Amino acid sequence: MSAAITATTLREALQHKINFKTKPLHALGKLEGIALQAGLIQQTLSPVVNHPHIVVFAADHGIAATGLVNPYPQEVTAQMVLNFLHGGAAINVFCRQHRIALTVVDAGVNFNWNDTITDTGFIAAKMGYGTKNYLEAPAMSEAEVKLALAKGREIVAAIAAKGCNCIGFGEMGIGNTSSAALIMSAVTGIPVEDCVGRGTGVSNEQFATKTTTLQTVFRKHQPAIAASPLPNTILQHFGGFEIAMMTGAFLEAAALNMIIVVDGFIATAALLLAQLIDKDNQGGSPSGGGSPSHVLDYCMFAHTSNEQGHEKMLHYLHAEPLLQLDMRLGEGTGAAMAIPVIQSAVLFLNEMASFDTAGVSNKE
Amino acid sequence: MSAAITATTLREALQHKINFKTKPLHALGKLEGIALQAGLIQQTLSPVVNHPHIVVFAADHGIAATGLVNPYPQEVTAQMVLNFLHGGAAINVFCRQHRIALTVVDAGVNFNWNDTITDTGFIAAKMGYGTKNYLEAPAMSEAEVKLALAKGREIVAAIAAKGCNCIGFGEMGIGNTSSAALIMSAVTGIPVEDCVGRGTGVSNEQFATKTTTLQTVFRKHQPAIAASPLPNTILQHFGGFEIAMMTGAFLEAAALNMIIVVDGFIATAALLLAQLIDKDNQGGSPSGGGSPSHVLDYCMFAHTSNEQGHEKMLHYLHAEPLLQLDMRLGEGTGAAMAIPVIQSAVLFLNEMASFDTAGVSNKE
Repeated sequence: MSAAITATTLREALQHKINFKTKPLHALGKLEGIALQAGLIQQTLSPVVNHPHIVVFAADHGIAATGLVNPYPQEVTAQMVLNFLHGGAAINVFCRQHRIALTVVDAGVNFNWNDTITDTGFIAAKMGYGTKNYLEAPAMSEAEVKLALAKGREIVAAIAAKGCNCIGFGEMGIGNTSSAALIMSAVTGIPVEDCVGRGTGVSNEQFATKTTTLQTVFRKHQPAIAASPLPNTILQHFGGFEIAMMTGAFLEAAALNMIIVVDGFIATAALLLAQLIDKDNQGGSPSGGGSPSHVLDYCMFAHTSNEQGHEKMLHYLHAEPLLQLDMRLGEGTGAAMAIPVIQSAVLFLNEMASFDTAGVSNKE
Repeated sequence: MSAAITATTLREALQHKINFKTKPLHALGKLEGIALQAGLIQQTLSPVVNHPHIVVFAADHGIAATGLVNPYPQEVTAQMVLNFLHGGAAINVFCRQHRIALTVVDAGVNFNWNDTITDTGFIAAKMGYGTKNYLEAPAMSEAEVKLALAKGREIVAAIAAKGCNCIGFGEMGIGNTSSAALIMSAVTGIPVEDCVGRGTGVSNEQFATKTTTLQTVFRKHQPAIAASPLPNTILQHFGGFEIAMMTGAFLEAAALNMIIVVDGFIATAALLLAQLIDKDNQGGSPSGGGSPSHVLDYCMFAHTSNEQGHEKMLHYLHAEPLLQLDMRLGEGTGAAMAIPVIQSAVLFLNEMASFDTAGVSNKE
């Protein structure tokens, strides 16, 4: 009871601080909501963004070897991991620009690096050489799901321990828009054909094949999921390793009171699972007001991806994203673009003068 | 002819460079269009953003003394100029965050500073102590319009001479959403009541008064404008000094091949006039393709302001803005938030690896 009262008081105090900055009421739009949320997450009138960090989880998917759902060959996952480590990908460019730390996690890439990677921004957490092809079998085992969730939590805990309080998650995995669409359908109940998008850019013909393939996959695994309708079961059947790790990462970031910057389609699929796990643990829904208590209370939604399906996910979560730049690249690029916007929100709250301190007349 | 061929070749070369970066085709959305435009403006495959700068033009409006259109008192214009110079306004916060230089211009503030301001970021270019009240007379004289346009050009030329190639314009002036609405109606033909918005936040009752007042003003000046339907005539009747200077500033920035970042409602009203002046001079419409030649070819639209009317202005200009953050503050804050997005576009073009250089497989 007392905690709830304090939280209401803090919310009111934050709103007052926002309203009496030298600007018309609500004139900073979405930045004002972000500033309020940051204050509530950090339980302070002066929240800060410290050592923002993006973690890219990379893994391969058994289905990708069939070519039924992906225009790019599976090898691209490993090639892009090397591109990240050499600094040549879009996420590298945006992280350098905004001084965001970047960590790349091998969550299950189908490539043997032979320990050649010594980059300090690389974490070897390989769960296997890609998941199983879910046209034939569940993507992973129950034990693998648990291990991946735990590994994701561990990675975030280590980053938080170094002083980071604002984290975003990206991914790389040829075929992973298919896993995300299957997960989306299983969690939201939206038919799988309305969750499938063009991913890295399939043609019309490939899109039709991708859709029918995923309908087949969904039907095949539906009885098992219906028998045990848990987030872990969904992950087990549809994968992937990077999505499972990201799910654990979301849960740990919330547990550690971090600002979580939610990227696009794949990241939001992982969040759909994380919020279910969190709800199951709490036996309820998000708090809605007062102190943050549910994983969604810690989430700031970076952007609307152009991947069809993402907008529906955001709608399902009642999420209002910050940016609409028509991006659909993954890697955490949407999160990287949104972090400076979040920093702007925190900075105006801390640095702007109030009507009183600036000697500016308020409305008559 | 040869220039046009070169331009087409450059456009194609830029598009090729964008398409073969290590990302799915078009996956960086609006950033790709910005990168292309920056390359065309600077006539290079490797455009850069150098010394980005925001110029805030401040001035007062005769109408504001009546209180018929503005909830804040006229004194706020001068108070906010001091707030800018003390670093306490939103535009200061965002410019500091993104290392954007900031210049504040007294274009006609109703306050006598007595030469007390020695800040190097301040330009004294006072055209008068506010415009005339357009309920009684034209806001300014024909000579004042010309002088303000010239002064705006001169200010931009001086900033460009110091190495800036990317500029945005902001404004401060209690009552200036009214001038902007009148200008918008005169240029676009949209009825004035559909151009009026709530500005700094008028109540329903104040909004009704603002609308009827501006309808009266529009009717009063319409015959004179119809007799001489020129951008200068519109400026003369509806003001203000800051909008006239900004109009000149847009023209000079385009003449100097700068990237122009267009802020919100007031800035876009000035651009409506600038593009008319430019069209009159060229005897035609924007080039549409190839080399930039018209002021609009140099413009990148920062955001959609929440001020009603701005979206219609953008639609009139066929402009696609970068951000939708529900902001409506002026001061150039939308432009400041968009400059890092423009920098991201230029940086990906210069720094991302291509499929070839990164050894990443393209689509099969």
